[in-house]
Amino acid sequence: MKVKDLGEFGLLAKITPFLPCDPRRVIKGIGDDAAVIDLGGDRVLVVTTDMLVEDRHFSLQYTDGWHLGIKAMEVNISDIAAMGAVPLYALVSLGLPPATEVEFVEELYRGMACSARERNISIVGGDTVRTEKIVISITLLGEGEKGQIVFRSGARPGDVVAVTGPLGRSAAGLFLLQNREKLQDVAGEIKEELISAHLAPRARLREGLILANSGAVTAMNDISDGLAKEVTEICLASRTGCRLKKEKIPVAVAACLVAEKTGQDPLAWALGGGEDYELVFTVKPERLEEIKKVMLAAGRTIFPVGEITGSGEIILESEDREDPLFVAGYDHFKEGF
Amino acid sequence: MKVKDLGEFGLLAKITPFLPCDPRRVIKGIGDDAAVIDLGGDRVLVVTTDMLVEDRHFSLQYTDGWHLGIKAMEVNISDIAAMGAVPLYALVSLGLPPATEVEFVEELYRGMACSARERNISIVGGDTVRTEKIVISITLLGEGEKGQIVFRSGARPGDVVAVTGPLGRSAAGLFLLQNREKLQDVAGEIKEELISAHLAPRARLREGLILANSGAVTAMNDISDGLAKEVTEICLASRTGCRLKKEKIPVAVAACLVAEKTGQDPLAWALGGGEDYELVFTVKPERLEEIKKVMLAAGRTIFPVGEITGSGEIILESEDREDPLFVAGYDHFKEGF
Repeated sequence: MKVKDLGEFGLLAKITPFLPCDPRRVIKGIGDDAAVIDLGGDRVLVVTTDMLVEDRHFSLQYTDGWHLGIKAMEVNISDIAAMGAVPLYALVSLGLPPATEVEFVEELYRGMACSARERNISIVGGDTVRTEKIVISITLLGEGEKGQIVFRSGARPGDVVAVTGPLGRSAAGLFLLQNREKLQDVAGEIKEELISAHLAPRARLREGLILANSGAVTAMNDISDGLAKEVTEICLASRTGCRLKKEKIPVAVAACLVAEKTGQDPLAWALGGGEDYELVFTVKPERLEEIKKVMLAAGRTIFPVGEITGSGEIILESEDREDPLFVAGYDHFKEGF
Repeated sequence: MKVKDLGEFGLLAKITPFLPCDPRRVIKGIGDDAAVIDLGGDRVLVVTTDMLVEDRHFSLQYTDGWHLGIKAMEVNISDIAAMGAVPLYALVSLGLPPATEVEFVEELYRGMACSARERNISIVGGDTVRTEKIVISITLLGEGEKGQIVFRSGARPGDVVAVTGPLGRSAAGLFLLQNREKLQDVAGEIKEELISAHLAPRARLREGLILANSGAVTAMNDISDGLAKEVTEICLASRTGCRLKKEKIPVAVAACLVAEKTGQDPLAWALGGGEDYELVFTVKPERLEEIKKVMLAAGRTIFPVGEITGSGEIILESEDREDPLFVAGYDHFKEGF
């Protein structure tokens, strides 16, 4: 069998069982946004890694070195944010075709440095090798308080599911980049907002920390692959189901505008488009108001979108119907760029 | 300018200065085998990463998944060993062509797991993406005692330069793999030894720890790119020079045998071939005997090969002449596989 037939998740399921893991120090291994390692005392080390490949995760038709550098760093920060931890140290490995312009590589590092500096992250190492297409592999280390780390697995029936911001911007931005002929119908400000959201997303680091510190959040995930898939991951890890309320899913106004002008479905962008890098989390219903208030005090609105259930189903509920949610799960081996 | 014109080291020199780095917690950033981070108290976190690319660092003509998995893990362990630290946690990111056989990927992970398990390393995370050629990016985290970490930069004039074992095996093994028609002249046992050394090298972890714990070792590096380059790195970091004594460089007997039969230069394999993954270190001369003894007690012989000098030159000295050492520094962008 080939990996394209088995898929990324099938492959992981096959391999994870025989990988060595010391349960005395590894609090969480494979299967969350980041691994969590006991450092002794109250502190844990939180570690994540992401590999971005040219023409697969990004295209130089649409982005430049600087934006790509920011995005590469932010997607890793987002994984640490989703655990409620603080990112501290990054290692950057780059595969570069020999004909790559040095200026492009400098811009790429400047983008990474820009994002890292703002977050107080030190870039401490890496590797540079020759490849045919650009490969960016970043490992990000962070720290957290043992009691405050939020896993995917803590959701319980009755918990409210909420997100930290409107969705669909990134997918709408990608749509505009891929359909430039449609750009003329869209106001400059809207274009700017959506394309920026796609090319240089900002991880919700502060939000993740506030949510984790509240102690009221039971599970959390970052929205890298669309709300539907991220909620499904929480449900799978927590052995629960979920009912999402269609009319409560916050689709960004700018995305709705573009969808309307171009005949696209903005809800599909929010549910399946991915790369918004907002956080989706679950919270005990009696503590929802408190969470709303602390987030509002930090200048952020949260959006309840549904409820965790005891069944194994992920349901999308609208006024007149209920549909089992089709999870447009992005599988690297099964689907195209 | 293109990266192939600037080279890997030129690129690093251009980029490193503007990368953010917090000196309060980062004891050593870019520029050693691994980064060293202060964890508070006596402990430090030691982190390294390596990216291996198909047809660049390995060829599936010569290796299989299992051996490749071992090698990928061991080259990272070797970097941690060269700091005198203990490897503990690995993250494995894989880029795989969709047509890769699942069985190959399983064997690859089994090889990594085999090496990791023997060293008590937990594999705690990673990423799997689609690429055109296989890319293996491993990040390895370890721990050490703050006072016992050995950097490249501590060598002082008068220090003895020594290596932990005979060199040239890996290069001789690669030569045999690339010249299969010559294999019939070589005894099975010798073939086995050399090809194993190339396909599944063993990092000198225990040796690195003993050397670091002795407190007598002033600088250390693992021999991934040939003795000449590794010694040069120590000299550059320590702002010293070095005289290597040609007749003291321990070339593995098996490599000498193959070199003689095939008209190759075994010293060139030892100096420039690389991938032996022995350690090269410097030690105060008055403590050399003590180091010899503790290593012998651990079943290992060390080989003094020269002396650190106050000049900036790297000299290869033989009975009748002295040559400035040509450093066959492997530059990923400038040279072929």
